[in-house]
Amino acid sequence: MTKTHRAGPLFIDLYELTMAASYYAHQVFSTATFSLFIRYNHLTRNYFVAAGLEDALNELAGFHFSEQDIQYLKTTGLFSHDFISYLAQLRFSGDVRAMPEGTIFFTNEPVLEVTAPIIEAQLMETFMLNTIGFQTMVASKAARCVHAAKGRPLIDFSLRRTQGQDAGNKVARSTYIAGFAATSNVLAGKIYDIPISGTMAHSYIAAFDSELDAFSAYSETFPENSIFLIDTYDTFEGAKNAVKAAKAMKKRGNSLIGVRLDSGDMADLSQKVRKIFDDAGLFDVKIFASSGFDEFKIEKVISENAKIDAFGVGTKVGVSADAPYVDVVYKMIRFKDRDVRKLSSGKITLAGEKQVFRKSDQNGRYLKDIIGLKNEAIPETEPLLEKVMEDGKLLRPNPSLQAVRDRFKKKFSQLDEKYKSIHNIVTYPVKLSRGLQELQDLMAS
Amino acid sequence: MTKTHRAGPLFIDLYELTMAASYYAHQVFSTATFSLFIRYNHLTRNYFVAAGLEDALNELAGFHFSEQDIQYLKTTGLFSHDFISYLAQLRFSGDVRAMPEGTIFFTNEPVLEVTAPIIEAQLMETFMLNTIGFQTMVASKAARCVHAAKGRPLIDFSLRRTQGQDAGNKVARSTYIAGFAATSNVLAGKIYDIPISGTMAHSYIAAFDSELDAFSAYSETFPENSIFLIDTYDTFEGAKNAVKAAKAMKKRGNSLIGVRLDSGDMADLSQKVRKIFDDAGLFDVKIFASSGFDEFKIEKVISENAKIDAFGVGTKVGVSADAPYVDVVYKMIRFKDRDVRKLSSGKITLAGEKQVFRKSDQNGRYLKDIIGLKNEAIPETEPLLEKVMEDGKLLRPNPSLQAVRDRFKKKFSQLDEKYKSIHNIVTYPVKLSRGLQELQDLMAS
Repeated sequence: MTKTHRAGPLFIDLYELTMAASYYAHQVFSTATFSLFIRYNHLTRNYFVAAGLEDALNELAGFHFSEQDIQYLKTTGLFSHDFISYLAQLRFSGDVRAMPEGTIFFTNEPVLEVTAPIIEAQLMETFMLNTIGFQTMVASKAARCVHAAKGRPLIDFSLRRTQGQDAGNKVARSTYIAGFAATSNVLAGKIYDIPISGTMAHSYIAAFDSELDAFSAYSETFPENSIFLIDTYDTFEGAKNAVKAAKAMKKRGNSLIGVRLDSGDMADLSQKVRKIFDDAGLFDVKIFASSGFDEFKIEKVISENAKIDAFGVGTKVGVSADAPYVDVVYKMIRFKDRDVRKLSSGKITLAGEKQVFRKSDQNGRYLKDIIGLKNEAIPETEPLLEKVMEDGKLLRPNPSLQAVRDRFKKKFSQLDEKYKSIHNIVTYPVKLSRGLQELQDLMAS
Repeated sequence: MTKTHRAGPLFIDLYELTMAASYYAHQVFSTATFSLFIRYNHLTRNYFVAAGLEDALNELAGFHFSEQDIQYLKTTGLFSHDFISYLAQLRFSGDVRAMPEGTIFFTNEPVLEVTAPIIEAQLMETFMLNTIGFQTMVASKAARCVHAAKGRPLIDFSLRRTQGQDAGNKVARSTYIAGFAATSNVLAGKIYDIPISGTMAHSYIAAFDSELDAFSAYSETFPENSIFLIDTYDTFEGAKNAVKAAKAMKKRGNSLIGVRLDSGDMADLSQKVRKIFDDAGLFDVKIFASSGFDEFKIEKVISENAKIDAFGVGTKVGVSADAPYVDVVYKMIRFKDRDVRKLSSGKITLAGEKQVFRKSDQNGRYLKDIIGLKNEAIPETEPLLEKVMEDGKLLRPNPSLQAVRDRFKKKFSQLDEKYKSIHNIVTYPVKLSRGLQELQDLMAS
């Protein structure tokens, strides 16, 4: 399967390279460990869904400066000839421990730890943060929508408003992990093998002499795959035209899949449109709705008894509109056999290589997490970080997207309902182990 | 100069292709015009800065389905053999009129109009919206920051938190158009020839036995290019260590460029750090600040008399955090010699091909805009849309990024200060011409 193209090593903040140049000049090559975590939950995100690891690992595994990259670095005039030669042969040779994609996690828990010679570990910072931060943010937003939809299928319609091209594909992938049924993004369909879905736009209706002509024409092209957009002129007239077209389709032995509402009071319109179809005996015609949906609007229209069978969810999920970034950081927590702690104002980092231990009840329901030391043993808990890369080599193939999606579904079912609230902050218990706490106390003293 | 890679024709909502398939099946090939505009200003954006046209035009000029794209479309089972053969030979053959990048514009004004056989014009929708919408949004956000900074240089630090890879590069380009001085994004430096800038991270400090050792090591590697991060342990101690390192640099005939603050009360800290340097006679050492800056925080710290010489501006601008999407749309407004108007609930589109006429005073100051008919003549105004593509061919090379940046600077200086408020909605006067109004009245009747 084709994937999105690699970012390459120039997808990097310049300071990673200037620091590396200085390490190189001073022959600082010792091993460091960096920990990636979400520092602060600035809005109502009671949980996060890990996503982006596959892209992160592919980038690490393929890390190298091309001849063109090297040429550009020379033109900057910032780096010595020796350092540039060093970069030209550099590959990533480190180890990575990480939570598998689809894992539920919480603020302050390490999602990924990179252990490598300090230059290599440092150079990975920008891409790791970008790709895991963004994909996790979108998967988490999408999970909230899936929860709010109570089993109704959701389709990613965000492509036209995602923040650039790469975002469009990653949104399709991340929302699919969180349980979306399909995407409108054809390229994502191709590269990730996600089901693709689409209907028609208002312009299609306007291109024909009448709405009924448009519906008829479309149903001839897609006799078993038609969803009519019915709000171009008047939603109820549109529904009546859809009934006419659907009956004509029936006569030909086909059936209309559904209609789409894209404006107006969704609960009220959907009830009235449902009645128009039911009165015509078209009980199987589904009602799709789009236009500004996110978890809040989905919950609202369902609570108002909307007769909506599936939602097209676009912009607000594609950019995570209510929380368009996460405070994700990548901090050095061990270097040269000593643990490292950052203490600058308001931004404390826990020293030491870590593991997250999850305790569940006998039914698998999550009870609490304990952030501990990497090599600590905490009985009757599940360690969440797994070693996925050693000496720069993947230890096993990445799981299929379907496997990640299945994993999320199972894990999400083990999270108590109260944490799934989209309105209230309900803090899942995350403690530090005695070993980790003692290490922090030791370092603060 | 290398550019970012093309999105390709599969970067598209499926419905564009299903509509196209139905047009093809019914031999609907007449010419249509689509108009791209921002429909609704949902937050305090008194103006927008046009950006993204270069990518849009490159995509149009290179539009074609690869063999691999065609193979994928076959596997979907949605399309006829004839239609797929038609797509395989399809190129964009239409005309484009657009505002040049760097133009200031307002809600409801067309930024771009595409005139082409309906299938071609329709297939461009998703990419046009994505690329022009996103880049315009970021350039507009960046312009607000530049205004708030009152001449102090701004550096794009957003790469680690942009929404994906493509966004990272486009943010660097869009913020540069709006007047940012540099970016930390090395890849953007390479592909767009934007100045790159960077300092050091906390991890660099922590990798040495002491802060002073770290500063000394860095200044040896970059004797004329050092900016020290001074808040890893204690900002004032950091400033004093920076003074020591700077004096040592002076003895060697070099000079320290500056220091960076990344946490705490920026106004207070910067004043005290300034005094530490001034007391040591180091008047030329500059103070850089980063950490959560956007137009609001920049304005605030300047009003508090912060002694900050330049700002690193990251996440909040890179994702346009207070307004992470714009309501940009691409609507068919003419088809087969008839004008088209969409009337669905709450979403009215002005019919007809348009031009935006800008009236200025004798000093070049903008007075008002008139949205008129494409071929209308309105004396003593400047028409903002220019023909940039004809029969699928670019009419002239895209302007250089520097030229776009210069254009923005000039145009922005012609916009009255009151519209540049970052707090208040101040509506710039945009009227409809008599001709355009008469057309709408005619169509509503």
